[in-house]
Amino acid sequence: MKPYKEMNKEELTSLKAELEKKFEEEKSKGLKLDMSRGKQSTAQLDMTMDIMDVFDSSSVLKTEGGMDCRNYGLMDGIPEAKKLLGDMMGVPAQNVFVYGNSSLSIMYDAVSHSMTHGVMGNTPWCKLDKVKFLCPAPGYDRHFKITEYFGIEMITIPMTANGPDMDMVEKYVNEDEAVKGIWCVPKYSNPLGISFSDETVRRFANLKPAAKDFRIYWDNAYAVHHLYEDKQDEILEILSECEKAGNPDMVFEFCSTSKVSFAGGGIAGMAASLANLEYIKDSVTIRTIGYDKVNQLRHVRFFKDMDGMLAHMKKHADIIRPKFEAVLDVLDRELSGLGIGEWTKPIGGYFISFDAMEGCAKAIVEKCKEAGVVLTGAGATFPYGKDPKDSNIRIAPTFPTPEEMAAATDLFVLCVKLVSVNKLLG
Amino acid sequence: MKPYKEMNKEELTSLKAELEKKFEEEKSKGLKLDMSRGKQSTAQLDMTMDIMDVFDSSSVLKTEGGMDCRNYGLMDGIPEAKKLLGDMMGVPAQNVFVYGNSSLSIMYDAVSHSMTHGVMGNTPWCKLDKVKFLCPAPGYDRHFKITEYFGIEMITIPMTANGPDMDMVEKYVNEDEAVKGIWCVPKYSNPLGISFSDETVRRFANLKPAAKDFRIYWDNAYAVHHLYEDKQDEILEILSECEKAGNPDMVFEFCSTSKVSFAGGGIAGMAASLANLEYIKDSVTIRTIGYDKVNQLRHVRFFKDMDGMLAHMKKHADIIRPKFEAVLDVLDRELSGLGIGEWTKPIGGYFISFDAMEGCAKAIVEKCKEAGVVLTGAGATFPYGKDPKDSNIRIAPTFPTPEEMAAATDLFVLCVKLVSVNKLLG
Repeated sequence: MKPYKEMNKEELTSLKAELEKKFEEEKSKGLKLDMSRGKQSTAQLDMTMDIMDVFDSSSVLKTEGGMDCRNYGLMDGIPEAKKLLGDMMGVPAQNVFVYGNSSLSIMYDAVSHSMTHGVMGNTPWCKLDKVKFLCPAPGYDRHFKITEYFGIEMITIPMTANGPDMDMVEKYVNEDEAVKGIWCVPKYSNPLGISFSDETVRRFANLKPAAKDFRIYWDNAYAVHHLYEDKQDEILEILSECEKAGNPDMVFEFCSTSKVSFAGGGIAGMAASLANLEYIKDSVTIRTIGYDKVNQLRHVRFFKDMDGMLAHMKKHADIIRPKFEAVLDVLDRELSGLGIGEWTKPIGGYFISFDAMEGCAKAIVEKCKEAGVVLTGAGATFPYGKDPKDSNIRIAPTFPTPEEMAAATDLFVLCVKLVSVNKLLG
Repeated sequence: MKPYKEMNKEELTSLKAELEKKFEEEKSKGLKLDMSRGKQSTAQLDMTMDIMDVFDSSSVLKTEGGMDCRNYGLMDGIPEAKKLLGDMMGVPAQNVFVYGNSSLSIMYDAVSHSMTHGVMGNTPWCKLDKVKFLCPAPGYDRHFKITEYFGIEMITIPMTANGPDMDMVEKYVNEDEAVKGIWCVPKYSNPLGISFSDETVRRFANLKPAAKDFRIYWDNAYAVHHLYEDKQDEILEILSECEKAGNPDMVFEFCSTSKVSFAGGGIAGMAASLANLEYIKDSVTIRTIGYDKVNQLRHVRFFKDMDGMLAHMKKHADIIRPKFEAVLDVLDRELSGLGIGEWTKPIGGYFISFDAMEGCAKAIVEKCKEAGVVLTGAGATFPYGKDPKDSNIRIAPTFPTPEEMAAATDLFVLCVKLVSVNKLLG
C-alpha cells in the first residue's frame, strides 16, 4: 500500500469506510486487553517462586559478618546486598545504600529531602524562588509526577537515539543555577528503549553545573533487562565517569529488583559518592532504624551473585521476547511504508515507543479504548502529561500473552490507520 | 539502711569509700553489657522463625480477593493486613494504611509531607514562621529527633502516671495556632511504661485546637506488648473517641510488628480517618507504586488473626518478663528507702524508667560506662536531648539475658549510690 499522504481524497475516503467497517467488527469482539502496564506477567512471577524456598524456620538469618538480619541495625543495608546491587549498577559495594522495595521512593525522598534540607549543605530548595529539572521526553511519567508534585519547573529535553539532546542539557545545566537535576533512564529507556551512547554519558559526566547542588538522577531501572543474548546494550558507568571528570558528587543512581524478583517484594538501592552517602545516612538515620534486611538477605541467597542474576534475567527474556516480537511483527507488517507512524525496536527494557502523526496520539488511545484495548494515556510520557505534538504512545508488551499482544496490536494498528486517515481528511 | 539525705558528712564519706572500693572491684571484672537498646533478644527472634515456613515455592501469594501480592498494586496494603493491623490498634480495617517495615518512617513522612505540602489542604509548614510540637517527656528520643530535624520548636510537657499533663496540653493546643502536633506513646509508654488513663484519652479527643491542621501523633508501638496475663493495661481507642468528640480527623495512629515479628523484617501501619487517608493516598501515590505485599501476606498467614498474634505475644512475654523482674528485684532490694531514686514498674512495653536525684543522671550513665555497662544517654528522653533536671535514665531490659540484666542492674545501683553520695557531699 502506498503512503497515506500520497493518497487523494477519494482513496482516503474509500479507505476510511473500509477501516471503519473493520473497526466495528473488532469492537464487536469485546476485547479486553491491557498494553499500558510495565509489569511482570504471571509466568515471570512464577519463575521466581524458588526465592520462597531460600529460608525456612531452621535458617540462620545472619550476614557473613555475623549481623542478625532479623533485628535492628545496618541502616544502609547488609554488605552482601550492597555488593549485589552494586554489581547490577557496576559500582563498588561501598557506594551503595540498600533501601526497601521501591526505587521510586528513594527518588521521591531524595527530592523531598532536597526541598526541606538541601543537598549536602546547600540551601533547601523550598527557600529558593525557583527550582528547575530537565526532563528528557518521552520519559517516565512517575519521574515527572514527583517533580511536578513539589512545584519544580520542568523543562522538556528532546530525546535522540543516543540519549537526551546534550547541547540543550549542557546549555541549561551549565548556565542556569536554578536547574538542580535531570531525570534519566540511561539504559533501555522508558519508553524509547534506547541506551545512552558513550559520548552522551561522557558529556553528562563533564557537565559544569551552575548549581553546586545539581544532581543527575540516573534511574538505571533496566540495567540487566536484556531481551537477547547476542545483542545487548551496555552503557558507561556514570559514577566513575563523573569522578574522572572531577564531578564525583554529581550523580544519584537508582536500581531495583522490581522486574528481577517481585515488584511487590523486591529490594531497591541507590549508588552515589561516599560524600553523598555520608550526607544521606545522616538524614536516613532520622527517618528509620533500618530497612528490611531479611528480604535483602533472601535476595542475596537466591541470586548468589551477578552470574546468578543474569541467568535469571535470561529466563525473564525468554518469556518477554516473544511479546516484543509479536508487537513488532504486526507493526512492521501493517504500518511499514505508510508514513503514519514510527516506532522503536528495543533490545531490552519494558517498552516500545510509537510516534503517530502529529495530533493523533490521543485519538488513537481513545479509539483503542473504545474497542477494549487499554494503552498508557497519551501525553503521559511528557512533563505535565502534555505531549506538545500529541504524537507519542507507550506500548507495554510484558503483561499479556504473546497471542494477546498480537491481537491488541492488530487493533492498535487499525486505530492508527483510521485516526490517520481522519486526520488527513481534515 | 537509712535515707542518704539523713546521713551526716561522716557517714556519707565512709559510705563513699566503701562504694568506691566496690566499684573498682566491679570495674575490674570487665563487664560488657548493654541496657540501652529497646530491641528483641535472639531467643525472641528465634521464637518467630516459623514465619519463614509460611511460604515455599509452591505457595499461592494471592489475597482473598485474588490480588497477586508479587506484583504492583494495592498501594495502601492488602485487605487482610489492614484488618490485622487494624485489630492491633482496635480500629476498622478501612481506617488502616499498611506501609513497609518501619512505623518511624511513616511518622517522618507525615511530618516531612506536612512541611512541604501541608495537612489536608492547609498551608505547608515550611511557609509558616513558626511550627511547634508538644513533647511529653520523658518520651521517645526518635520522635523528638524528627521534629528537631525539621526545625520544629519542641515544647516539653511533663508526664504523669496517667499520661501527659493535660492542663498544659489543652492550654497550648487550644490557644496557640503554631502548635501542629503532639508526640504520644499512649500504651506502655517509652520510657515510663505507663498507659494513658481513660480521662486522658477523652481529654485528648476533646481538644479544641487553634490550628485546623493540628494532629495527635499516636504511636501505639506497644499495643499488644503485655508482660502479664493477669494484669494488662487497656486504653480507650482514640479514633472513635475523636469522632465522638467531633474531631474525626485529629489523629494519626501508628503501629508496627517490629517487636512482634522481626524488627528487621516486619510490617507497619497507620490508622486515621477516611478523609485523612484519602489525602495521604494522593501523596503516597506519587512516592511509590506500593509497599512489600509479600511480607504483608506472610504476616497475615503467620498470625492468622488477633488471637494468633496475642498467643505469640504471650511467648514474647514469657521471655521478657524475667528480665524486667530481674531489674526490678535489684532496684527494690538495693535502692528502696534510700531516697536516691524512683522507678516505674511497667506491666508491658520495653522499658523501665529511672529518676535519679536531680543532677545525677549523666554522671550515673558515665560511671556505668566506665565499668562496661551501656545505658541510653542521659537526656535522650527529652527534647533536644536535654533533661532539665538531669534525672531520667531509660533502662531497656529486653536484649540481654535475665542473668546479664541482674548483673548490669547490680552495677547500675552501685553507680546510682556512688553518684548520689558524691552529689550529697557536694
